[in-house]
Amino acid sequence: MKDIQSQRDSRRINIQKVGVKTVSYPITVRDKARREQHTIATANMYVNLPHRFKGTHMSRFVEILNEFHGKIDINSFAVILKKMKDRLEAEASHLEIEFPYFLEKAKNADSRTLGHYRCLLHGSLNREEDLLLTVEVPISLPVVETTPRRLPGSFGRWGHAEVNVRFRQFFWIEDLILLIEQEVEAEINHLLVKEHSVISVEALTRRVGACLGEIAAISWFSVTVHNFGDECATFATVTSP
Amino acid sequence: MKDIQSQRDSRRINIQKVGVKTVSYPITVRDKARREQHTIATANMYVNLPHRFKGTHMSRFVEILNEFHGKIDINSFAVILKKMKDRLEAEASHLEIEFPYFLEKAKNADSRTLGHYRCLLHGSLNREEDLLLTVEVPISLPVVETTPRRLPGSFGRWGHAEVNVRFRQFFWIEDLILLIEQEVEAEINHLLVKEHSVISVEALTRRVGACLGEIAAISWFSVTVHNFGDECATFATVTSP
Amino acid sequence: MKDIQSQRDSRRINIQKVGVKTVSYPITVRDKARREQHTIATANMYVNLPHRFKGTHMSRFVEILNEFHGKIDINSFAVILKKMKDRLEAEASHLEIEFPYFLEKAKNADSRTLGHYRCLLHGSLNREEDLLLTVEVPISLPVVETTPRRLPGSFGRWGHAEVNVRFRQFFWIEDLILLIEQEVEAEINHLLVKEHSVISVEALTRRVGACLGEIAAISWFSVTVHNFGDECATFATVTSP
Amino acid sequence: MKDIQSQRDSRRINIQKVGVKTVSYPITVRDKARREQHTIATANMYVNLPHRFKGTHMSRFVEILNEFHGKIDINSFAVILKKMKDRLEAEASHLEIEFPYFLEKAKNADSRTLGHYRCLLHGSLNREEDLLLTVEVPISLPVVETTPRRLPGSFGRWGHAEVNVRFRQFFWIEDLILLIEQEVEAEINHLLVKEHSVISVEALTRRVGACLGEIAAISWFSVTVHNFGDECATFATVTSP
Repeated sequence: MKDIQSQRDSRRINIQKVGVKTVSYPITVRDKARREQHTIATANMYVNLPHRFKGTHMSRFVEILNEFHGKIDINSFAVILKKMKDRLEAEASHLEIEFPYFLEKAKNADSRTLGHYRCLLHGSLNREEDLLLTVEVPISLPVVETTPRRLPGSFGRWGHAEVNVRFRQFFWIEDLILLIEQEVEAEINHLLVKEHSVISVEALTRRVGACLGEIAAISWFSVTVHNFGDECATFATVTSP
Repeated sequence: MKDIQSQRDSRRINIQKVGVKTVSYPITVRDKARREQHTIATANMYVNLPHRFKGTHMSRFVEILNEFHGKIDINSFAVILKKMKDRLEAEASHLEIEFPYFLEKAKNADSRTLGHYRCLLHGSLNREEDLLLTVEVPISLPVVETTPRRLPGSFGRWGHAEVNVRFRQFFWIEDLILLIEQEVEAEINHLLVKEHSVISVEALTRRVGACLGEIAAISWFSVTVHNFGDECATFATVTSP
Repeated sequence: MKDIQSQRDSRRINIQKVGVKTVSYPITVRDKARREQHTIATANMYVNLPHRFKGTHMSRFVEILNEFHGKIDINSFAVILKKMKDRLEAEASHLEIEFPYFLEKAKNADSRTLGHYRCLLHGSLNREEDLLLTVEVPISLPVVETTPRRLPGSFGRWGHAEVNVRFRQFFWIEDLILLIEQEVEAEINHLLVKEHSVISVEALTRRVGACLGEIAAISWFSVTVHNFGDECATFATVTSP
Repeated sequence: MKDIQSQRDSRRINIQKVGVKTVSYPITVRDKARREQHTIATANMYVNLPHRFKGTHMSRFVEILNEFHGKIDINSFAVILKKMKDRLEAEASHLEIEFPYFLEKAKNADSRTLGHYRCLLHGSLNREEDLLLTVEVPISLPVVETTPRRLPGSFGRWGHAEVNVRFRQFFWIEDLILLIEQEVEAEINHLLVKEHSVISVEALTRRVGACLGEIAAISWFSVTVHNFGDECATFATVTSP
């Protein structure tokens, strides 16, 4: 990693973003059922760099991350952003953490299954703080009465819903995941059983969007539903009004 | 692929984007030296969908693409966007094409080498047309006098520059690539030979940004330079003022 | 790329494989319907290196490839392997070419669709020549009468069949692909309609294996069928007896 | 996931491999310095299936894995393989676990850095047990006196060494990693400082191979060293005699 150069750069160009991307970093995140869970993240950390600085102290980014020993929650997020802004003498600091999140669910009476969700936390500190959560929820087709008897899994992967959310107050990742899964399942059942219709990305996107729009804790959202096809995939996106 | 449903959706939610992503599609693009080159693209095609429509005609996207038999240039781009807007009764249409672009270069007197650049064209048609070109140019370290005799390649991959550009007039992809390569090489030589300094993403980003800012044909740009490290990568971004 | 070092290496260790991997290389391959098609390959080229040689002439690999201007067929494969063996003074030479292969098919009366198949050709020249073809064929679920009316694509991606074959005589890639697709479709229909049973990787693998075992032009094969699931995927492999 | 079908399959074809691939699974592995570390694995679990069985109990694979709550070490490996063989009535069982392994190292007096190594454990139980460990160790170029002053990381990624090993007795993953890193560093210094020569994949592969060949605890090995280039990569492989 490169370190500071204190001289000026004569080109007088502001750098909007300068920072590091870690390849892989073990972290612990909060978990509603088990208090915390261990996972592995990739982290992007960056600040702005006014033209009066020639370069930035690249090694300080990872130093700051190391001070938290991989404990990442909403509190440490805010402190990391503050430290980045201060120690790197920047006006704006950004931290992005992407990680798989695991959630155990009852599949049926005797067996439990481990769901696996891609999550991304994107925090910024400028004059104000901003925190955006992205969750990717897999979508599979359920067994419905009108189809021949089939055991779970034989349909393959239908697609996934990618949801971006800004919250007004604390909200568990698992509550957001369960909410999305419930809405998707309800819409699929509605389409297949009531309407005898095709399952479309448009209908699923609108259903999830309508639900998120009614939750007071959510100040902004966008929803994209993807359907994997062989030849081409389809998708639809709805954003909060 | 799903097709139209002409009924209304009672939720009255506008869909910002609805469309298809092709897995892989052979195309031909214009080539300055050889008139055209064959490559393989992935294409995203999407439109907006007002709430009065329940769904869109997904199959029409690929039908429109097929009508052009993979001939993609600035003219066909504009026609495809227009056809998408019309046939899908949308207010805005988008076409994104990502493909590797090959460029033969003299390595030395007797041998030629084939450079390989990731390119992305993103066109939109709303009330006005917009076209954005993204090019990713690999960066390797040159052999300089102060190092022991080394043959090219032995340093490994240093990083790459990702450049996004909007043009005022036609500009060849290869001219943009060569321009970026020249600026990067000049800055590396300057840093190593003149300044005996470290090669930094900050300096390279500013150099490429300063150069693009002086080209009249370019109306907007952003430049990000990445350096691959073992433990973490570094990057810096400059945007046109 | 590094070049030859003619001195000896004192450790007296034979190197089994030494060579290059190209990132990306445009090639043309033979095509039954259109005579030839343009695609993009990644190529691995390697030879053995007896302990009396310190290193190999890395640049000669790509030089040999360049002499063929990307025209890859069974004849050029044999010539490339021979040139590698001769010019690099090796006892064994290997060439692996991986590329997407495109195949146009009638979807219904008015529309045609472009299938996309991952292919790999692996040729070796030791005392004898050996050529292995790998083809990956996507599997999707058909619309059957017992399910509610659904348009193609709405099931998502079920999985794929990966088939490795050694031939006794020339065989078109498209004929192998169509054969696999027919067997897969027939078995799925058999399972769903006749047996009202689940579609299993075991049944599909055996069906494709049984078919390949009866083709005189095939001297050896292996078949693996994968089913993508949300939580975990399943697979089964059969090899020619 | 599909479950057993107890009927016979009339095609009388043995299935060599049938099983599951998990997308992602949190595990704990043994760690020399910290007793254990948390990481995330992908697991492949499979058995053979004689032709008298129509299918296998896919759900039992993950059930067995779940019984160990992700605690993976050499002892649990052997027990999992035994349970797979017994419960699935197979003659051979296989378990492959791939995961990133983290190793903290002193970079200099005041700062520590977290190395990140791709590892793969492949265990089989037929009549005998077999266990193979694969480790991928990144290679970067050190700062040597003959080059201008440079800070670590500015060279980019040179390549990596992939080592496969069978052991006669227990051996820590970290001891294997450190051994490989020492040999690579020593050879690079030898080549640059003593021989003023280019760093070649051939020399590095032979050096690591020579070292592994002298360790009594190792019964078999293979070493491949890769150098990433822009246009093409080079590699060399040595196998134990």
